[in-house]
Order: sequence, then C-alpha cells, then structure tokens
Amino acid sequence: MKGFKIKLLKLLSLFVLWSQTLLAQEFNLSNYLKKGEKDATLSVFTMLQDAAKHKNSKVIIEKGTYHFYPEKAYEQYCFVTNHDNSMRRIAFNIKNFDGLTIEANDAKFIFHGVMMPFNIENSKNIDISGFTIDWHLPLHGEGIIEATDTANKTFDLRLADNMPYTIRNEQLIFIKEGFEHDLNHAILFDPKRKAVAYQTNKYTPLKMINQVEIRNKEKFDFYNYIDFRIPEYESQNQEYSIKAKEIAHGLVRISGSELPPPPVGMVLVCKGQFGKDRIANAFHINKSSQVKLHNLTIHYAGGMGILGERSEDITLEGINILANPSKNLMVSTTADAAHFAGCKGNIVINNCNFRHQLDDAVNIHGAYVIVEDILAPDKIGVRIGHFQQAGFQFADLGDTIGFIINEKLADVEFKATVKSCFQLNQHYYIITLNEAVTQKLGKGFIVENLDWYPEVSITNCQFADNRARGLLLKSPKKTIIKNNYFSNMMQALLISGGINNWWYESGGAQDLLIEGNTIGDCNYDGEKRPVISIGGKWENNGRMLGKIVINNNTFNNFNPSIIKATGVRQLEITNNSITNSKTFPALEPDAFVFDIKGVETLTTQNTKISNGFKNKLKTEAVKNTFSDIK
Amino acid sequence: MKGFKIKLLKLLSLFVLWSQTLLAQEFNLSNYLKKGEKDATLSVFTMLQDAAKHKNSKVIIEKGTYHFYPEKAYEQYCFVTNHDNSMRRIAFNIKNFDGLTIEANDAKFIFHGVMMPFNIENSKNIDISGFTIDWHLPLHGEGIIEATDTANKTFDLRLADNMPYTIRNEQLIFIKEGFEHDLNHAILFDPKRKAVAYQTNKYTPLKMINQVEIRNKEKFDFYNYIDFRIPEYESQNQEYSIKAKEIAHGLVRISGSELPPPPVGMVLVCKGQFGKDRIANAFHINKSSQVKLHNLTIHYAGGMGILGERSEDITLEGINILANPSKNLMVSTTADAAHFAGCKGNIVINNCNFRHQLDDAVNIHGAYVIVEDILAPDKIGVRIGHFQQAGFQFADLGDTIGFIINEKLADVEFKATVKSCFQLNQHYYIITLNEAVTQKLGKGFIVENLDWYPEVSITNCQFADNRARGLLLKSPKKTIIKNNYFSNMMQALLISGGINNWWYESGGAQDLLIEGNTIGDCNYDGEKRPVISIGGKWENNGRMLGKIVINNNTFNNFNPSIIKATGVRQLEITNNSITNSKTFPALEPDAFVFDIKGVETLTTQNTKISNGFKNKLKTEAVKNTFSDIK
Repeated sequence: MKGFKIKLLKLLSLFVLWSQTLLAQEFNLSNYLKKGEKDATLSVFTMLQDAAKHKNSKVIIEKGTYHFYPEKAYEQYCFVTNHDNSMRRIAFNIKNFDGLTIEANDAKFIFHGVMMPFNIENSKNIDISGFTIDWHLPLHGEGIIEATDTANKTFDLRLADNMPYTIRNEQLIFIKEGFEHDLNHAILFDPKRKAVAYQTNKYTPLKMINQVEIRNKEKFDFYNYIDFRIPEYESQNQEYSIKAKEIAHGLVRISGSELPPPPVGMVLVCKGQFGKDRIANAFHINKSSQVKLHNLTIHYAGGMGILGERSEDITLEGINILANPSKNLMVSTTADAAHFAGCKGNIVINNCNFRHQLDDAVNIHGAYVIVEDILAPDKIGVRIGHFQQAGFQFADLGDTIGFIINEKLADVEFKATVKSCFQLNQHYYIITLNEAVTQKLGKGFIVENLDWYPEVSITNCQFADNRARGLLLKSPKKTIIKNNYFSNMMQALLISGGINNWWYESGGAQDLLIEGNTIGDCNYDGEKRPVISIGGKWENNGRMLGKIVINNNTFNNFNPSIIKATGVRQLEITNNSITNSKTFPALEPDAFVFDIKGVETLTTQNTKISNGFKNKLKTEAVKNTFSDIK
Repeated sequence: MKGFKIKLLKLLSLFVLWSQTLLAQEFNLSNYLKKGEKDATLSVFTMLQDAAKHKNSKVIIEKGTYHFYPEKAYEQYCFVTNHDNSMRRIAFNIKNFDGLTIEANDAKFIFHGVMMPFNIENSKNIDISGFTIDWHLPLHGEGIIEATDTANKTFDLRLADNMPYTIRNEQLIFIKEGFEHDLNHAILFDPKRKAVAYQTNKYTPLKMINQVEIRNKEKFDFYNYIDFRIPEYESQNQEYSIKAKEIAHGLVRISGSELPPPPVGMVLVCKGQFGKDRIANAFHINKSSQVKLHNLTIHYAGGMGILGERSEDITLEGINILANPSKNLMVSTTADAAHFAGCKGNIVINNCNFRHQLDDAVNIHGAYVIVEDILAPDKIGVRIGHFQQAGFQFADLGDTIGFIINEKLADVEFKATVKSCFQLNQHYYIITLNEAVTQKLGKGFIVENLDWYPEVSITNCQFADNRARGLLLKSPKKTIIKNNYFSNMMQALLISGGINNWWYESGGAQDLLIEGNTIGDCNYDGEKRPVISIGGKWENNGRMLGKIVINNNTFNNFNPSIIKATGVRQLEITNNSITNSKTFPALEPDAFVFDIKGVETLTTQNTKISNGFKNKLKTEAVKNTFSDIK
C-alpha cells in the first residue's frame, strides 16, 4: 500500500510536470514576421502581446539578424534612474508578465536610432538568453587624432564614414538618426590597448565652454528650491569656446581648447552634454523580480547596458558587454555596463565580461531623498537629490525608511514606516508615514530606504578598459567579490559610506569579502588614487563601515597606492600579492601601499609586496592593529 | 386629495433641491493655504484632491493674487494637440471629475516658468469662472527696434528688463525661467495700434537660418517613413546666418538677415524654433463634456489659451484673451486664443474678446490620419499627419470613420466603424475595424473621423490685432458666426474643404451662416488675400462645401478683395455693405470684391460697395447665378 502511494505520488508529480510543460505556450518569432519586412519591431510587439495572455510563456527567436526601428515601436514615458527620462521607443515590452522565457538561438538584434531594446516592468520569473544587441550607427562620437599643432593648440580629427557630422556655426556636431550631440564629455581611447588612454585627463574633457552673463536675471522669481545643475538651467549661461573647421571631407580641425592637443593616433570619444545622452539603455528592469539574463552580448547602448531598479533577485550569467570587435569602435555602452539602484534579494553576476564602457562597470546603491517640507505630523514632502534619479520609486507601502541629519552624521537618527509615497512630480514626492515624526524632524534631514538593499555576489568576471571604475559597492548586505579581473581607468573598487551631495547614492558596506581577484593597472587616467578606495566615516563625515575582508588577491599596478581606507570597524587585508607592473611611470612613487585611517581593528597578514614599492603601511587613528608588515 | 398630492410633490422637489445643495460639498481655498507660503500650487492640488471625492463639488477662491510655481506642481505627460507634447506641470488638475464648479471672485493667478494652468481630462459638468491668468515673465521675446542701418542691414533691439537674455556664440537668446528661445518666428507689432504691424512680412520672419551639409548621411538607414519636418530632424542641417552683438546693457545689434531692417519704433516679437514653443497653454480640455468657462481673462499663455480635443459641449462666455494692458507687452497667447480639434456636441463662444495672439483667434477642425500599413483584413496601421497632432485620440470604439483617396478627391470613398484604436506610439496607431476593408483599401488613403465634428455658434465677439486669421471653420455641422467684430493680420474667416498636406486638418463646411458681423482691416501683413477665403473643391482638389450664407455684414477694408470662393453648392452673399477704409495703401486695387469659382448656385443680392472698389464680381464655372451686381 505504501509503495503504491509513493508510485501514485510520483505519477502525479510527473503529470504536473508534463501538464506544466504542455501549458507553457510557445511562440516562435518566425510565425509573426512578415515576408520582405526588414523591421521586426511590430512583429515582436504582436508576439509579446500574445505571449502576455499566458503564464510562463516561452518565446523562441530563431537564428538570424533582426532589425528594430523606432517608428513602429511601442512607446511609453520612462523614468529610468541614473539616465535621462524620456518617451522611450521600446522593442521588447515585457510588462505585467508572470513567467516569460525568451530563448534566442544566436540571434543578432540591430537597433536604429533612439530606442530602448528591453523594458521589463512589473514582471516576475523572466529568463532571457541567446542574442547580441548592437546598433546600426552608434549614438556617441569617435574620431582619430590625425595631426596636432601645439603652438596654435589645434588638433585634426579624422571621422570615419560611420560618423555622420556637420559643422554648425563653427561647432562640430555628430549627427545621428533622430539625435545629435557635440564634443562635450570627451575622453581619449588608446586604439592599441582598446582602453582609455594613459593620462587622458591631461587632454580631456576638452575645455570647450565659456560662461556668459544673463542680463536682467534679477527679474527671475525662483521661490522654491531649484537644482540649477539640471541641464535646462546649467547651459543657460554657457557658450562654446572652441571652434571647428572642416579641412577636408572627414577631417575637422578643432581650435580654442586651452588644454594641450591630444596625442596623434589616439581616438577622441565624446557623447555630448550631460543630461541629454542617456536615452537608449539596453535593458531596464523595473519593479520586477526573479529576472535572469544569460548568454547575451551587448555591443552597444546609448546609456547603460543593464539598469535594475526597485527589483528583487536579478542574475546576470555569461553576459558580455563590450565593443563590437568587427566595427573598429572603442565604446560599448555610453554609461555603466550594469547598475542596480534600490534593489533587494540577490544580485548575482557571474562569468561576465564588461569592457569599453564610458562609465563604471557595476554600481550598486540606494538613493537618498531630501526633506523639503513637513506637510503634516505624519506627512513629508521630499525632493530627489540628483536629477538623474528623477521619478525613481523611493519607497512604497510598508517600507522602513531612515532619517539622517546630513550635516551631522551619515547614520540613521530614527526610522519610520511608509503608508504611501505619492509622486507629485518626478522631483517631488509626498510620503505619508505610519507615525508622527514632526517632533524628531528638522531642517537638513535626508532619508534612506532601509529595506531595499541586495545581497551581492560578483564572481568570475572581467571588468576592464572602461572609463571610470570597476565596482561601486554600497549595499550594507552580504557582498562577495570573488575571482574577478579588474583594470580600470579609475579605481577597481570604490566602497563608500559617505553621502556625496552630487549623486546622493545611499548605503555603506557592512559585510564585504574581496577574494581571489586579479587586479591589473588602474587609475591610468593620470589622477592619484588607490586601486581600492574605502571611504567610511572620517571625522564628522560618512558612515562607519562594517567588516571588510580583502583576501588572496593579486595586484599588478604601476602605482604603489593599493588600498586607502577610512572608517571601517574590522578591516582584514590578508594573503595579497602586490607587484609593480611598470606599465606606465608611477604617478606617486612615494605613496603607501596601504594607507589606513580611523579603523577599529586592522589586520594585515601575509602580504607580498614587490621591491619597487618602498612605503608599505601608514596608519592613523587605528585602535587595534594586527600586522606583519615591517 | 389632488391638492394634497401637488403640495407633497412640491415639498418633495424642494427637498431634492435642498439635499442637492447640501450634498454639493464646498471647498474654500483659504482653508488650504499655508500662512507665509507664496506658492499656492500644492494647496490647490490638495483642495482638488478633496473635491474629487464628491460629485458636484464647488471650489471657492477668494479675491486675491495667487502664485503658481512648477516645482511642487502635479505632473503628467500630456499629449496636447496642435501643441508640443511634454511632461506638463499642472496647477489645476481636474481629472475624472463628475461635476465641479470653480468660482473665483476676481482672483489673479500668476504663473511662473513652464506650467499648464488647467488640465480638464475625463471630466464632465465643469464650470469655471472669475479669475485672470497671467505670467510672472512671458515665455516669448519682445524688443523695440531702436535704430537701423539700411546700408549694413543691421538693426538695434532694445530689451526691457522683463526680458532676461544672453548673447551665446553671437546669438541673442531670450532666457526664461526653465526655458529659452532664439529669434526664430519673429513678427513685428505696431505699438501704437497694438496689433501686428502693416507689411510685417517685408521684414519678418527674419532670414536667420542657413542650410549646412551633413556628411556621411548616406550611412543613415531610414527604413520606415519619417516626417523630417519634426524638429529633431529639421534643425539637423541648419545653422544661424544672423549674428547678435550687445552694444550696451539692454541693446543688441542684429546683423546678417537678408531682409531690410524693420522700421524704428516697431516691436519685434519672437518665440523661437517651431516645435519647442507650445508648451504652456492655459487650458487643456480633453475627453470631457459639458465644460463651461466664463468671465475669465487670459493675459498670457505660452501656447494656446483654450484647447479642446475629443470633447463634447464646450461653452466660452465672456472670456477675454488679450495682453495685459498694464505690462506694455504686445502678445497675449503665443498660439491660437481658442482651438477645438475632434470635438462634438456644441461649441459656443459668446461675448469674448480675443486679441494679440501669435496665431489664429479660433480654429475648429478634425484631423486626418494616413494609412501606413494594412495589418489584417480588419486592421490598419495609421500614422498621424502633422507632428503637433502626435498622440491625439483619433478614434475610439464605435466611431464611424471615412476613407479618402488623398490624391484623387477629398470625398469619403467608404466608411467603417471602429472596434479599437490603440496608440502604439504617438505617431502610429493600430485601428481594428468591425469589418474587413482590405478589398477597398489601397495606397494613399487617408482617414477622417466622421462622428467628431461639433455644431458651432460664435456670437458677439471681437477677434482682432493678432497674427494670422480670425476664424478657421471646418466643421460640416451647423455653424453660426453672428454679430462679431474682426480685424486680423490675415483673413477674417478661412473656410476650407481641402486637405492641406501640412496640417492635415479635416472637415468642410456644409451649413454655415455668417451674419451681422463687422469686419475691419484684414490682411495688413502685406500678402494678397481676400477677407473671407472659401476653399472648397476646385478641379481635383478639395471637398465640395454645402450651403454658405454671408448676410448683412459690414466690411471696411483697405483692399477690395472681400470674398474668394471655390467649390460651394449654394453660396448666398446678401445685404452686405463694403467700404474702403483707406487705412493703408491697397495692395491689389484691381482685385474683384467677389471672386467666385466652381459654385453650383451663387446669389449676390443687395450689396453696397464703395466707389473706390471698381471690380465687383468675377465668376468662373458657376452653374446658376442670381446676382444684382452690375
């Protein structure tokens, strides 16, 4: 009888599995494509509309090249944090799905103009794999420095035919399909290394803007707080100080920059004015959970590669974000490769290769908002801190938020739970709390969402050859960084507990393991920084960080400065090997390998340091030191 | 017994009235205002949130001056037809109301920066009265021509202190609160007449744009239809050909325009590039019914004064839209005073005074869309015709639409009813019909919504001193234009049955009475036009118009050309009096007073024409003429 029951149960479970497989509706893109139609956008939209009618739908995209154009794309206004909000034209509109697998078989997706390939919103159990994203024409500009005239401070830029351009009132304007930009935000890439050029910041960004005066501006009546850094205000009193002249078709002479002309042979890369260029990110994962992206290549995006916000459990497995090698372009994504703001659950990144971005490889954080008005004992009006966070979902029913006196300390003064968070506009929200807070609140408070930080695991990845940093880690939850390779224009790892009054990114590591990583040359832009920056509490600034273990890593860097740390309770630096790469001349040959301040317990054990680096350990205000460094 | 019953019924009806009065909740703005708070925006928002909880709420706004700023205003992305779509900051958010009275008692509303004062959406039974709308600083530019140099073709512009500005790379930029524009779309106003200057088109718009070449543009891959008139494309190959130089604070010299410099003493008015300036209309009435606006003054709006779309029964009674006389500004609204697109029911405009706009006084029409794809036998993909109609609701469930072969004729070829109209994006809609149409459809078809045209009554109004026309009338339903005064830069009345391939405004008068109006000088911009243009079918263009009666009107015009008409079935011109105003030199002294072509039955009776106008009636292809003109 018992055996029969077990058999019955087994049969039943088999039946359930079988019926689930049967019920998982399959959709093949080939059934939706119209013959002779080059634009797959409307076909994909229709297919996903059908797939949305079922739970756990599966979409199969056959091997081939598919083009996506904005004219017949689904459109919605998107608030995409750390981007520029806009009406986005979306190719894959994955909204309100409960279970969706998109299985492409080595498909190539070519995007045209200003589009957002994937919007994953209010969805769960999403599994996407098997394709390459690229753009017909990039949305940024590139040109090779062909000649320079140091006396006259001019340089000649050679523009390949994938760079449509015009000279407009003596300015070089890169013309795109439905978009354009100027020479702002320029940086040099070294085409031999296919990485940001050594000491680019001697030459870039170009000094191309003059301030001009606004007359009669005393007539303006700015009654409320206004963030004058937002582009519509910031550029009002600016003009170009540089000039461009076409010498021949494809050859443009730039003059008027006060900086020395960039070296011949380097590639000048630019993306135009801040606040107008992050409009075509590849993936937006928003208010979703259990999202897995795997075996994908993103050769290009006009913004970030993958942006997750207000989402839970995101896995990136085998994702390559790097410039298309067949195209002779230097840049992959014009902002971060992957970025997670206000996420929880697990962020897992394994076996990925992120290169050639114009910003950080990965950044994980929350965001502070600023108390602007106390509207009732239980109701506050808050404004967002940075304009590129405009419209992000700061909190919702049930979230615990922490109030911090920005000017005093980065630690939470008191907590409250949220009844509602209403977005009056993208810069100003009304938060109703479950309790009165008037007595405790005062001017200068900022607020943090304490519930939306993720556990992080980043393993077996490569982060290299990009502008800016490798990883920015702010989550206070368990974070593991293991067996990765780094080589970045700035720090490999930036671990901050501070409140940066520009970006307003929140958090502070409490349980962080950095182990088994190989770290090549960093900070080759020409600035003096350590390979790993840890910026916890120091004097009255920043938040005390928790336990940080840096174990068994290999550093091979041209500068001696490896770790600079402040404000950590327990900092363990063990079994690391540090050699002088001698790739470039050291910028700070006398710098200390480890420069540690304001740490409660410091352990440095079994460190191998190459002979070239003479100053090994400097400590200040460290309570307990366990070190074998002599 | 009978008497008792009547008494009971009377008592009951009194009780109903009393309870209705009791139930109509009243909200006083004074109860919501915070002491010492200059910005009323959040208070008004909160009050309207409370009012929205009840049917037939009444809001009372006490006498006083109220300021509205964008920073704490409710925001939503708005598709506003014949405007530029944008994320609008809204002061009065009247959404989903069933009954709302806003009764202000001589209140003044002062708006700051880029805002939309009123959004009335998905609402019915709305009654708004008793206030003045003005702006702290206007969103357009004005300057007096102080000096000219004809030899060098330069002129000097004097900018008052309400005109913040800067010179950026040799261009004059008018700087606003969160907005800016250049000298594009300039026109002259005569400050003595406070009207558009005589022969402004000899001098304006300024010839300020050169075409420049885009290199490598053969690399663009525009697979789908693209409207290259949209601003992001149109300006890509443009640069400024004029230059600006500040001679003294508030005095700017403009050079490089090929046109002769404007006369000294005239006011140059401008609003910048097309497609970026219609962002701050005063009223948007959308998907609503029974809306009455009365006893209001709109001194200013950065766009239209009142825009109604997809709405039913709108009444404007005692509305003044004219520049604030205390401010020495020439302009009221930077586009039309009132405009109705795709409305039905009754549009009633009585006792209004519309002056000083930068576009037409009133325009009433539908909009054509263009068949782009046949997606299924019962499903078509259409794109909108003009980019400023992007996102308008073309049709909905149950609407009857008419298909027209644009190239052949303006008449409806066949009809169909709509099952659904889905806005894939603001330029492309998918319409599903209740029947298959594939057999009848071909290339080049355009579509008209036959259900959404209104009856129109415009009486006892003044339309004068504005750029462009008085009234544009396209509704085929009964239209009465009676006892109004006109004097406009272009035609007083433009009655078209054509398909203009620029604006794609649909319709064609079938039953129109123009009676008892007084019409002063029109077309004083310097172009040769009649006072009333009637453009029905002629040869293979346009739609045959129906019955048009022009009776008992008084014309006092400096040009003899009073009525030009084509394509009318029954045109009656009776009892009109026409005199030569001699205000300006006639532009076309030999023109015919009435110039009529392609009319089935023409009646011209009892016309008094002043001696100066020698050519009285010209006809061509008129079937039946009943005329007493010798």
